[in-house]
Amino acid sequence: MFIYTRYFFPSFTWHFFVFLIILQRVPSSEGVWPMPQKISQSSEQYLLNPEEFSFQYAEDSITQAGCSVMDAAFKRYFKLFFPGYTADTGKLSLSLSLSLSIYIYICGMGNFTMVVRVQEEGCEGYPSAGSKENYKLSVSAGHGELTANTVWGALRGLESFSQLIYEDDYHTYYINKTEIEDFPRFEYRGILLDTSRHFLPVKTILKALDAMAYNKFNVLHWHIVDDSSFPYQSQSFPKLSTKGAFHPQTHVYTQVDVHKVISHARLRGIRIIPEFDSPGHTQSWGKGQPDLLTSCYKGSQPSGTFGPVNPTLSATYKFMAHLLREVSTLFPDSYIHLGGDEVDLSCWKSNPDVRVFMSKMGFGTDYGKLESLYWKSMMSITATLNKTSIVWQDVFHHHDIPSSLDVVEIWRGGCYMCEVRKMTAAGVRVILASPWYLDQPRPIHEWSHYYTVRPFAFMGTEHQRRLLIGGEVCMWGEYVDATNLAPYLWPRASAAAERLWSDEAQTSSVSQAYPRLADFRCRLLRRGVQAHPLFVGHCKHEYEDL
Amino acid sequence: MFIYTRYFFPSFTWHFFVFLIILQRVPSSEGVWPMPQKISQSSEQYLLNPEEFSFQYAEDSITQAGCSVMDAAFKRYFKLFFPGYTADTGKLSLSLSLSLSIYIYICGMGNFTMVVRVQEEGCEGYPSAGSKENYKLSVSAGHGELTANTVWGALRGLESFSQLIYEDDYHTYYINKTEIEDFPRFEYRGILLDTSRHFLPVKTILKALDAMAYNKFNVLHWHIVDDSSFPYQSQSFPKLSTKGAFHPQTHVYTQVDVHKVISHARLRGIRIIPEFDSPGHTQSWGKGQPDLLTSCYKGSQPSGTFGPVNPTLSATYKFMAHLLREVSTLFPDSYIHLGGDEVDLSCWKSNPDVRVFMSKMGFGTDYGKLESLYWKSMMSITATLNKTSIVWQDVFHHHDIPSSLDVVEIWRGGCYMCEVRKMTAAGVRVILASPWYLDQPRPIHEWSHYYTVRPFAFMGTEHQRRLLIGGEVCMWGEYVDATNLAPYLWPRASAAAERLWSDEAQTSSVSQAYPRLADFRCRLLRRGVQAHPLFVGHCKHEYEDL
Repeated sequence: MFIYTRYFFPSFTWHFFVFLIILQRVPSSEGVWPMPQKISQSSEQYLLNPEEFSFQYAEDSITQAGCSVMDAAFKRYFKLFFPGYTADTGKLSLSLSLSLSIYIYICGMGNFTMVVRVQEEGCEGYPSAGSKENYKLSVSAGHGELTANTVWGALRGLESFSQLIYEDDYHTYYINKTEIEDFPRFEYRGILLDTSRHFLPVKTILKALDAMAYNKFNVLHWHIVDDSSFPYQSQSFPKLSTKGAFHPQTHVYTQVDVHKVISHARLRGIRIIPEFDSPGHTQSWGKGQPDLLTSCYKGSQPSGTFGPVNPTLSATYKFMAHLLREVSTLFPDSYIHLGGDEVDLSCWKSNPDVRVFMSKMGFGTDYGKLESLYWKSMMSITATLNKTSIVWQDVFHHHDIPSSLDVVEIWRGGCYMCEVRKMTAAGVRVILASPWYLDQPRPIHEWSHYYTVRPFAFMGTEHQRRLLIGGEVCMWGEYVDATNLAPYLWPRASAAAERLWSDEAQTSSVSQAYPRLADFRCRLLRRGVQAHPLFVGHCKHEYEDL
Repeated sequence: MFIYTRYFFPSFTWHFFVFLIILQRVPSSEGVWPMPQKISQSSEQYLLNPEEFSFQYAEDSITQAGCSVMDAAFKRYFKLFFPGYTADTGKLSLSLSLSLSIYIYICGMGNFTMVVRVQEEGCEGYPSAGSKENYKLSVSAGHGELTANTVWGALRGLESFSQLIYEDDYHTYYINKTEIEDFPRFEYRGILLDTSRHFLPVKTILKALDAMAYNKFNVLHWHIVDDSSFPYQSQSFPKLSTKGAFHPQTHVYTQVDVHKVISHARLRGIRIIPEFDSPGHTQSWGKGQPDLLTSCYKGSQPSGTFGPVNPTLSATYKFMAHLLREVSTLFPDSYIHLGGDEVDLSCWKSNPDVRVFMSKMGFGTDYGKLESLYWKSMMSITATLNKTSIVWQDVFHHHDIPSSLDVVEIWRGGCYMCEVRKMTAAGVRVILASPWYLDQPRPIHEWSHYYTVRPFAFMGTEHQRRLLIGGEVCMWGEYVDATNLAPYLWPRASAAAERLWSDEAQTSSVSQAYPRLADFRCRLLRRGVQAHPLFVGHCKHEYEDL
């Protein structure tokens, strides 16, 4: 047996210690999820000591200390780099750690400076449709270098860096020599949350945003209202929520709540795109806004039920313009989602006033023309507000100049690739959601179904491919609320995240993804995200009930 | 408009106030889940003031102050009766509450004494197979009376009482005049938790026990070890967990942990029945106990893999006797589960030593006889330990005197009713699990599937019906750990709970159960249980992320 003595110690060289460490430790980081476009790692590994870790701006960085996004990120990521560290455990872990580590620590190893360089201003702005997210990251002994065009790219780089760090049983941290050059495959990588069928407390939305950032998602599509409830508290039309929310005080999003969500998202490089779905899916609107919805008839009498928004009244458009003006001011993103799915025409057809209107307009019995008329007005409202509109795919088929649409979201099952081909051929930008509907009846541990999607498998030109701007994971709320949102989302949405960020050629194998995703899922747990297990196994740090 | 003045106030009579309250409040309690055998309620309702609520033992109660089970229950249930109450909010709620309520409070209304009468001793014991759980509960103005044979029955009564209380927006509590006479339909109402495929932290198990008590379950079947891991830390064979657990320190149940679970369960009237499944499902045992498992052969050479426990060696039985003796001492329940499912015979068949043994014993090629031999020894070990054994249904078919088995648990799909008929006809006591396998591929919001089971639908005599002692919800752990256990269990297990406790004739309608279960699910949320939503809707108190 080999015995270390204090006489023997000083004769070791620095390199010998590093060699010993490499021999006795197996690197346990499975790398970064979603996989970077280019990554090279060597087995050379370094200790990271939280007490000697610092962030620094490069001298030639346009962004310097005082940049709100980066200041907040440094604080947040320090905790994510060293999850077991507190001022106390820091000292404890050193005393518990291996003698070799202690020796190296005493010798001054473990210090690390992360130098950050941002090349464009943008510290006080919001992430937007055109935001660049590319970054370069280089990790060597005692030194990291992160370069990005924008602060949003720098955030992505910090996330990757956080996932390179791994921890032993004594809260000692390691990282391997690494080079990364990275950028997203798609500019739009969204998650839809539905706060109408169940109300999600603000805290739950903020936690979802945290997890989204870990997965490099950059859009929260906030399906804020629908038939079931109208939790958005409007300043112009307060009755919409006092009458239409599940509860007028406890189940509403105040303007302050919305600000909180937007600002939390901004600091993580995530856009908030609100959806006010119409003319269908508006039952809850009718409670607080009389005469907005079409009165349905049974024969010659009103049946007492209501259908979609009434497209024949000018009051409807005045109301929509007013509401959307308020919404457009509150939500800074230049995109707004107008819905447009599943309009049930039977109520319009039953209403004698609508029929008179149809005849006056010369529409005959083609209610598609009525729907088209509605959309013309909505598009003109949106244009006045200087917003880019997203609509569900149904609108494409009922709009008489479909190519004038800004962005169409494809959600229906069946041959969704046919729809991508058709719409991009018409020159419309497209978001693909169909393959990532998480509420479809399927065991919720089945992540590979969402991983093996091939978004470019439609036959299209290079120009058409560029019009497919991204994808979206839809988490509809019929069976989802704060109790189960996290395990329903993660890691299935993580599977989609890699498809939307990474190079498909490098990430086509489910079996190669499995251990990486299992490792990433453990990292999510360690960060307090209740991610669903993939299969039998364990994480070093299991989720702990509070 | 009617204006209250201080001059007008005193001229109201007491009855007039009660009348007003009844007019303006709609009772919002959907009653007790699982439904009591007999319950009658009137619309007469009373205020309950937490500050004037007290428990009292009846003079003729055998159990008096100092009874550990009841003392703990009073403390626990006071919080469950008044979840929004703290000394501060108590006063606050009064100031916020309606003037009428305040007036009534000032007049001394709201005080309530719950008189508890237990007729048999048992405060320091454990709930057991024969424990009576019947109780009677009567609620009238200012007064409740709860009578039970045992403390375990009294616990069930307190749970029912807690579910009669409802709360308005100002934390004011109400209860209706009520009479309940209640007892369980089945004596055995279990939930299986699997801590081998995923480790469940002790806290998670304790929280599951809390929720079990809210549902009047009375058995936790602890499937503590299996192929994947051996988290039970044995005193006699410590290597079983140092080698066989996912991690020898963080992923084990120490003897202290087990004590903690047993004692938490006892205070809630829940038995803990451990399962040490053999001879199959024992891969993890083999890591710490060499020569326990059968070495599998490929041709004439060992293949390097291992099969079930080796039934041909006397060392096997010596080991099992020693381990089970330890387990029997640690777990106070008189039942122990020995497993016995899914024994793969191919490894035994491949092993030349096993084949020699077969021939020596004159078994020919009937490996069922070998399995039967194993069970004879196991039964004799269990008998020596004075324990009643439960085995999975497979053992019934491979045991040469199946009628000598104590209790058999039916788990396989297909015609499980045929199995109940067959086994009860052989005079064996039966636990039914097949229809309550929660891991079957089916959307996890589908509770009605577990509600519409009819356990007595087999054709059997009255004697056979009595041999069906209960049912069990099995929550296998392939895809379940601390992150998702609660929404996987609740409210699906609640559906089974009503089937196992309540009168089937009164609880056969899914549509009548729906609003009651939705209300009960909200109550679970209010108690911190992450129960899955049934469908679109809301709870007054949503689950809040911490």
